[in-house]
Amino acid sequence: MEVREVLNKVRAGEISVEEAEKYFKRQPFEEMGFAKLDSHREIRSGFPEVIYCSGKPDAFLVSIYQKMLEENGEVFGTRASRHQYEIMKKVLPQVEYDEISRILKVEGRRKKQEGKIVVCTAGTADIPVAEEAAQTAQYFGAKICRLYDVGVSGIHRLLSHMDEICSANCVVAVAGMEGALASVVGGLVSCPVIAVPTSVGYGANFQGLSALLTMMNSCANGIAVVNIDNGYGAGYLATQINRLAVRGGKQDERE
Amino acid sequence: MEVREVLNKVRAGEISVEEAEKYFKRQPFEEMGFAKLDSHREIRSGFPEVIYCSGKPDAFLVSIYQKMLEENGEVFGTRASRHQYEIMKKVLPQVEYDEISRILKVEGRRKKQEGKIVVCTAGTADIPVAEEAAQTAQYFGAKICRLYDVGVSGIHRLLSHMDEICSANCVVAVAGMEGALASVVGGLVSCPVIAVPTSVGYGANFQGLSALLTMMNSCANGIAVVNIDNGYGAGYLATQINRLAVRGGKQDERE
Amino acid sequence: MEVREVLNKVRAGEISVEEAEKYFKRQPFEEMGFAKLDSHREIRSGFPEVIYCSGKPDAFLVSIYQKMLEENGEVFGTRASRHQYEIMKKVLPQVEYDEISRILKVEGRRKKQEGKIVVCTAGTADIPVAEEAAQTAQYFGAKICRLYDVGVSGIHRLLSHMDEICSANCVVAVAGMEGALASVVGGLVSCPVIAVPTSVGYGANFQGLSALLTMMNSCANGIAVVNIDNGYGAGYLATQINRLAVRGGKQDERE
Amino acid sequence: MEVREVLNKVRAGEISVEEAEKYFKRQPFEEMGFAKLDSHREIRSGFPEVIYCSGKPDAFLVSIYQKMLEENGEVFGTRASRHQYEIMKKVLPQVEYDEISRILKVEGRRKKQEGKIVVCTAGTADIPVAEEAAQTAQYFGAKICRLYDVGVSGIHRLLSHMDEICSANCVVAVAGMEGALASVVGGLVSCPVIAVPTSVGYGANFQGLSALLTMMNSCANGIAVVNIDNGYGAGYLATQINRLAVRGGKQDERE
Amino acid sequence: MEVREVLNKVRAGEISVEEAEKYFKRQPFEEMGFAKLDSHREIRSGFPEVIYCSGKPDAFLVSIYQKMLEENGEVFGTRASRHQYEIMKKVLPQVEYDEISRILKVEGRRKKQEGKIVVCTAGTADIPVAEEAAQTAQYFGAKICRLYDVGVSGIHRLLSHMDEICSANCVVAVAGMEGALASVVGGLVSCPVIAVPTSVGYGANFQGLSALLTMMNSCANGIAVVNIDNGYGAGYLATQINRLAVRGGKQDERE
Amino acid sequence: MEVREVLNKVRAGEISVEEAEKYFKRQPFEEMGFAKLDSHREIRSGFPEVIYCSGKPDAFLVSIYQKMLEENGEVFGTRASRHQYEIMKKVLPQVEYDEISRILKVEGRRKKQEGKIVVCTAGTADIPVAEEAAQTAQYFGAKICRLYDVGVSGIHRLLSHMDEICSANCVVAVAGMEGALASVVGGLVSCPVIAVPTSVGYGANFQGLSALLTMMNSCANGIAVVNIDNGYGAGYLATQINRLAVRGGKQDERE
Amino acid sequence: MEVREVLNKVRAGEISVEEAEKYFKRQPFEEMGFAKLDSHREIRSGFPEVIYCSGKPDAFLVSIYQKMLEENGEVFGTRASRHQYEIMKKVLPQVEYDEISRILKVEGRRKKQEGKIVVCTAGTADIPVAEEAAQTAQYFGAKICRLYDVGVSGIHRLLSHMDEICSANCVVAVAGMEGALASVVGGLVSCPVIAVPTSVGYGANFQGLSALLTMMNSCANGIAVVNIDNGYGAGYLATQINRLAVRGGKQDERE
Amino acid sequence: MEVREVLNKVRAGEISVEEAEKYFKRQPFEEMGFAKLDSHREIRSGFPEVIYCSGKPDAFLVSIYQKMLEENGEVFGTRASRHQYEIMKKVLPQVEYDEISRILKVEGRRKKQEGKIVVCTAGTADIPVAEEAAQTAQYFGAKICRLYDVGVSGIHRLLSHMDEICSANCVVAVAGMEGALASVVGGLVSCPVIAVPTSVGYGANFQGLSALLTMMNSCANGIAVVNIDNGYGAGYLATQINRLAVRGGKQDERE
Repeated sequence: MEVREVLNKVRAGEISVEEAEKYFKRQPFEEMGFAKLDSHREIRSGFPEVIYCSGKPDAFLVSIYQKMLEENGEVFGTRASRHQYEIMKKVLPQVEYDEISRILKVEGRRKKQEGKIVVCTAGTADIPVAEEAAQTAQYFGAKICRLYDVGVSGIHRLLSHMDEICSANCVVAVAGMEGALASVVGGLVSCPVIAVPTSVGYGANFQGLSALLTMMNSCANGIAVVNIDNGYGAGYLATQINRLAVRGGKQDERE
Repeated sequence: MEVREVLNKVRAGEISVEEAEKYFKRQPFEEMGFAKLDSHREIRSGFPEVIYCSGKPDAFLVSIYQKMLEENGEVFGTRASRHQYEIMKKVLPQVEYDEISRILKVEGRRKKQEGKIVVCTAGTADIPVAEEAAQTAQYFGAKICRLYDVGVSGIHRLLSHMDEICSANCVVAVAGMEGALASVVGGLVSCPVIAVPTSVGYGANFQGLSALLTMMNSCANGIAVVNIDNGYGAGYLATQINRLAVRGGKQDERE
Repeated sequence: MEVREVLNKVRAGEISVEEAEKYFKRQPFEEMGFAKLDSHREIRSGFPEVIYCSGKPDAFLVSIYQKMLEENGEVFGTRASRHQYEIMKKVLPQVEYDEISRILKVEGRRKKQEGKIVVCTAGTADIPVAEEAAQTAQYFGAKICRLYDVGVSGIHRLLSHMDEICSANCVVAVAGMEGALASVVGGLVSCPVIAVPTSVGYGANFQGLSALLTMMNSCANGIAVVNIDNGYGAGYLATQINRLAVRGGKQDERE
Repeated sequence: MEVREVLNKVRAGEISVEEAEKYFKRQPFEEMGFAKLDSHREIRSGFPEVIYCSGKPDAFLVSIYQKMLEENGEVFGTRASRHQYEIMKKVLPQVEYDEISRILKVEGRRKKQEGKIVVCTAGTADIPVAEEAAQTAQYFGAKICRLYDVGVSGIHRLLSHMDEICSANCVVAVAGMEGALASVVGGLVSCPVIAVPTSVGYGANFQGLSALLTMMNSCANGIAVVNIDNGYGAGYLATQINRLAVRGGKQDERE
Repeated sequence: MEVREVLNKVRAGEISVEEAEKYFKRQPFEEMGFAKLDSHREIRSGFPEVIYCSGKPDAFLVSIYQKMLEENGEVFGTRASRHQYEIMKKVLPQVEYDEISRILKVEGRRKKQEGKIVVCTAGTADIPVAEEAAQTAQYFGAKICRLYDVGVSGIHRLLSHMDEICSANCVVAVAGMEGALASVVGGLVSCPVIAVPTSVGYGANFQGLSALLTMMNSCANGIAVVNIDNGYGAGYLATQINRLAVRGGKQDERE
Repeated sequence: MEVREVLNKVRAGEISVEEAEKYFKRQPFEEMGFAKLDSHREIRSGFPEVIYCSGKPDAFLVSIYQKMLEENGEVFGTRASRHQYEIMKKVLPQVEYDEISRILKVEGRRKKQEGKIVVCTAGTADIPVAEEAAQTAQYFGAKICRLYDVGVSGIHRLLSHMDEICSANCVVAVAGMEGALASVVGGLVSCPVIAVPTSVGYGANFQGLSALLTMMNSCANGIAVVNIDNGYGAGYLATQINRLAVRGGKQDERE
Repeated sequence: MEVREVLNKVRAGEISVEEAEKYFKRQPFEEMGFAKLDSHREIRSGFPEVIYCSGKPDAFLVSIYQKMLEENGEVFGTRASRHQYEIMKKVLPQVEYDEISRILKVEGRRKKQEGKIVVCTAGTADIPVAEEAAQTAQYFGAKICRLYDVGVSGIHRLLSHMDEICSANCVVAVAGMEGALASVVGGLVSCPVIAVPTSVGYGANFQGLSALLTMMNSCANGIAVVNIDNGYGAGYLATQINRLAVRGGKQDERE
Repeated sequence: MEVREVLNKVRAGEISVEEAEKYFKRQPFEEMGFAKLDSHREIRSGFPEVIYCSGKPDAFLVSIYQKMLEENGEVFGTRASRHQYEIMKKVLPQVEYDEISRILKVEGRRKKQEGKIVVCTAGTADIPVAEEAAQTAQYFGAKICRLYDVGVSGIHRLLSHMDEICSANCVVAVAGMEGALASVVGGLVSCPVIAVPTSVGYGANFQGLSALLTMMNSCANGIAVVNIDNGYGAGYLATQINRLAVRGGKQDERE
């Protein structure tokens, strides 16, 4: 309902001043005291709110999960610890936990998986971040192709999967240490590449700073970077791009 | 022509061993001695090669422009100085130069502009980077909507353009200083946001590091970051996303 | 008693040389061997000394609390651990401990709460720092309005509280990750904003550096920044400002 | 005019739907194409908009000054170069320029100066930043007391001005090199201290980073920090505090 | 024995070629396989070797202590853990351990304490580092005056000890957080100041970096800085300076 | 005149209240409006004030030199530009300028040079910083021995000067690039070593940060560090130490 | 088999199209699902693949060791924990573990040790990294000479081993703290020096950054640097150089 | 002549005590007052001394070139400016200058070029650094193969030169921006790779820090890194390795 529409209805007496006032002052979130659940987010962005579990007190986390499950029929959280899973399981026995990606969820119904996103990693130690990306994107309805351990120190491992990589709508390139994977992938594909630096490595990698800077400075085109270890963010963004590719976007009609 | 196809033709004697060898050893770039023009790039990525002019010696730059113009009928370069424009104009009088974006180009024919990308800036000082993004995307065939000087210190300026922003396939958010624009935009739209930190500011902005970190750490979803002042990279990536939205992407048929 | 006044009294024999010497060499602190309690601080600054508990050996902490309680009838400490609380409780059973803010105190009498300070946070994980600020300011006699979880990724949550925010004498904006909340608040209010970066986040937030730089570089006016996670400092400063607003300050009479 | 009031008038036919719509979609800024002058800022914050001149193209700057002068009867800009002054003088002969603070202004009428702000510097090299703060605050109507060259390497110079410092509503402490001045001042006064790190120094001062960190980590209470060399920001914030002290703030009536 | 002297003796047959060879190839350290004890150090520098205990395997540490005790009649180690003390006590029951400074030693005879070094700290949390400095210097024979908790947030505490400070041959100033103590002391005394940044603090102190930069950039004269938390280094250097003051140094006779 | 003495004289009527007040409020600096010359510094520290010329406006600098020359019969400034020298020469024709050290001075009478300080550099590019140190120390009355270009990449050059180095009261070790000279010297001598990192080098030396960290972390004893390129500071501190060695220091009588 | 050879055989019908296709699409690695063992690496580089154990899940690690042992008759891993050793021992009882270097291996037959590599350390705390280098190089067939605890604070310890050092084909210099060892060694030898910064130290060594920068900026020739604590990388590279020296390299025949 | 040999001759009276003393105190460098030419370097290291021209005063540089030319019949300097070339040409007309590499030399006779070093760059902007490496190595007698502009954003350009790369004794990989070239090359070859980060790029490359960290953290084996833009250092080290490969190294005879 647009502004003018509301105003016309007020004029016409179809809706009361109080209702209109509520409209103009509407509060699109659920006040929980300690938190404000963003219940309009799915409407606004097409994606339900996702819970960042790390550091949330047990009682808070449980009541957020209960609230969201009640409202949406499903709930999805990242960076959950095994301890949080065990607490949650007592209250919501149907909750599922994946040790590697640390995702804690109750999934209403398996979504239809559409389009294609390739998630690749440089090494095996990058897999947890990659799985956070992959499972996030799957939850949001994307089809995922995983290519793990294809880093540039053995470039033939990556080149042997060119067909897979070149048929994606979006590639998520996950790499720690020197993070060169993103540049090499970026030089091979025509679709957007979301680069995820990981904190894998030691010494002068400075907890992922090295990979982050590498990816930022990539001389290849079509690469953008998310935060260190932010698999969730990459999965979200890749899904947005994949959806645009599958469902089509907007075409400005004017002009 | 796929590998098996070539091999079958060799077997059938349809193509000679020499031709097939050339195929397997093909060198998809133009050797210019000092540089290797990536002439297959358009085929591989759907985008012609773009020249990064900054720091290239005059003679090199001129011969690269001539070569590319000859091959593609057009040529597009970024980070060109006024001096480079004046040198080039003597040889290629049809060359165009934009002082703000520092783009130096010969454009074959104006492309049809499809889809919609919003390019917004926090302040007026961010406009040169934004224009590099906008004009790059236009050159590659995207329709651009510019929203400049809508930074978060006067949030109403941004909110008054919600319609424009929400109808884009991709938003490019360009901001220096504290770079908060990307987070606010990211919280308002459902499409991907490409964040471009700029080196605008002073003191503890450390030549763009502040804005870069802000954008990296955004608590909003659907944001990825390119290098400081990298308008070109953002324009390129936004075009990739916009094309996927307009032209559609791949749908994995298998399974 | 001013310098000239003392001297006149010496001349007049009203006070002895020894007394005067003591005046000029007075030592306005309590020597405890390992520490020097700043007993003149309340006179000098209008605020009693507050104990930073973290890292203080148990025996030291207990004797400091006892000393201060004896002198002032109350005592207030920050960054106390649960362990310190338990040790203290044995000696001072009336001591109170708040798990979230980690404040350990014996409060003489509840102060009258005057003026108005808004303490807002970007997310729920910022609440401990915010509570340190809020409870500090309350202890010093300010009235607090808490607005938690109103970060910029859902800007409507903040905008729906404009009335509250605009009626404050001072706003304390607490945010980790990208720390953009301070800039947005700064653009909305006319009172001073004390920005508190928190170490909440991961990866390229570098333990709060990202939020600190964001707040430092804010393009909004009227913002100043305290140390990462320094809720106490923000609460103190906000109280100073709030008091000036309520009680009035100085008006230079001269000229 | 509040939301309900507008709606009641619509219902009553006192204002048209179109007028009401305009109210709800109002655009509180002046669109200049390349910039959006924030003409509601004075209403919102009590301070007119100030122009950051550095880097603005000559033509843009001149038209912004003309626009603002026309609207407000005065205009105030910071970080202006001598070149910008000379350009401006041709168009607005009444413009004034201060070489030290680099402020470029047309001041309508000298404001009444109220309250008291002390602006102090550690060394003589910090004076330009201090003057930006002092003159900004004067323009906004504060009374300023300047104490320059009172750094901690000769602490007696500072101590000899205790009376001045202790009678301020707010102290702005400007220091480069090691930036210790803020801590010492903070330990001496009961009013808020706005610390301004400057880029004065060399070597391991890293263009002001050293002073910034010093001020951030101050063990004194009641100190907050603005960006390196940000005299304007400190002057603005000090004025806000000074006004609260002079004019009084809000007292929350409820409860 | 000088080179020429040895050679003359060889010529004269007073010492054999083998003995002379040994002289020229002499190995002024004790080879322990895993370590090379620098047994000539006392001769070379006037100070016996001191053991840095942290991280040394138990067996190595014990045999080093035994070796040194046997050779020198005493042994002195820094950064020892309680665990290391307990292991050592079983083998060398006379060993003494100080929990605060973490010094583990067997002291032959109490040295005569000469000259005067002031060791001062900003806060109580800096005491462990200060004690490492003080006890090191005492072990090497210096007289120590301790002034703890005299940081700049209450400058009067420092000023009340001016007599003590001004009578030292060297001041060791130990401070974390903003580290301003060194600058203030440096401005008050005529003797060298050894500044020791500590890792005390949180947030933007970056484990002592803030204090280190402050001290490095001090605008006071006569200050030099040692590594973060390096109490031992400061105690050593202060002793060197104190000895020069007490025992006298060299006077170049030539010219 | 001590506090009690003054008071007794007041009581006895030997000095007036006004005189006594002046004593207690004495201002031991020369107020010049823009600066406060620290005229008591020589009394307090034994060293006259030295002018840091860099960045001082011409008129300020000239009047400071005139003032100081008048008061002390000599004046000494560092970091002077050739331009400043030329301006000064017009007013004070007797002024001397050294291009390498950038020292600008009028020296009353050549001081007697006492003791011995060795100033050594790693390379020839470090000489300007070394000369600032050496000439400062000479001005303050120390005897200097220069050993330049004795860096560790040809360790024999340093070892061939062991006699010189070992007979100093203090060594100033000046080095850029990797800064290893200080550690090697520190391992060879028994006197204090003042290490001066220089900004000589390129790439990962980060304008002297590399040398600074090297010197900070030296595993040799008896080394302290001053700011990058701070030859003056090193010369000052070395003179303090040299004086203590030559003139003797304090011996605490009490016990 | 070269490209042309394969094609000729296809033409001649000697090999089938399928076989040829397999050749052109060959996958030179063992797919293990979670990892891709690079089984061609020994052929390509002359070195078998080495396992980086740290962080690998137990089950993964065991199956990788089993697979590699089966294929190569031996297996070599670095950064193994004692826990990993205990798990492995149950399955492969012949596995050997070295606590210091943290190497976990099954060695087929002791290799002949050829050439000479010197591995030296500055202190005893650097030995674990040095042993990783030394044992890696031994496993790859190099002869190692160890010189431990020869850091620059007692330069005579290093100089007394000149013969050893000067007879090496390559020197690995391992040092933490200030890392000056590499520069000194580099100035003494004619062979390449591989510098390994270690994280040994505290405070301003920033976990090895100090040593890394020192080594990077070395003014000696013939030094290159590997990552902090990367003993394995240094051992590998030193072996490559040693092999070239022993076995001879390539001589370009053309021209 | 070894120590024992000298001593035996002294004993035998074959050489005088004075000659022997000179031997033991020999000074293997040419003292030039401002510099100490390391005339034994060629004997010690097999390489003549090379002059780092940048920043050397004209007169110094000229006399160093003259001295070295006289002694060695040739002289080689790096980082020379065109200005230095023009000054030098007046004195030594035979001097040659290369604008790109900035090498200024008089070459006695063209050396025989032996072995093979590949120098490759990621982009054309890296060529100046690569040429410094290549021409240095050629001067020292190595055969060079140049492969420029083969960066990873078009990996096929690199792969098409596999034959060249795989036949080298050493590869020098020069790259700015993200610096990924070294990792890819390292994964393809069996010889050592010397990685040279360059300062080419902008924004978050931080003047070469990004490429440096990438190369440091490479997951490929056999890579070591020299300073940013240090082409000379890479050329020197590559020559050492190439010589070992061509001329053979040492084989430890003992055991």
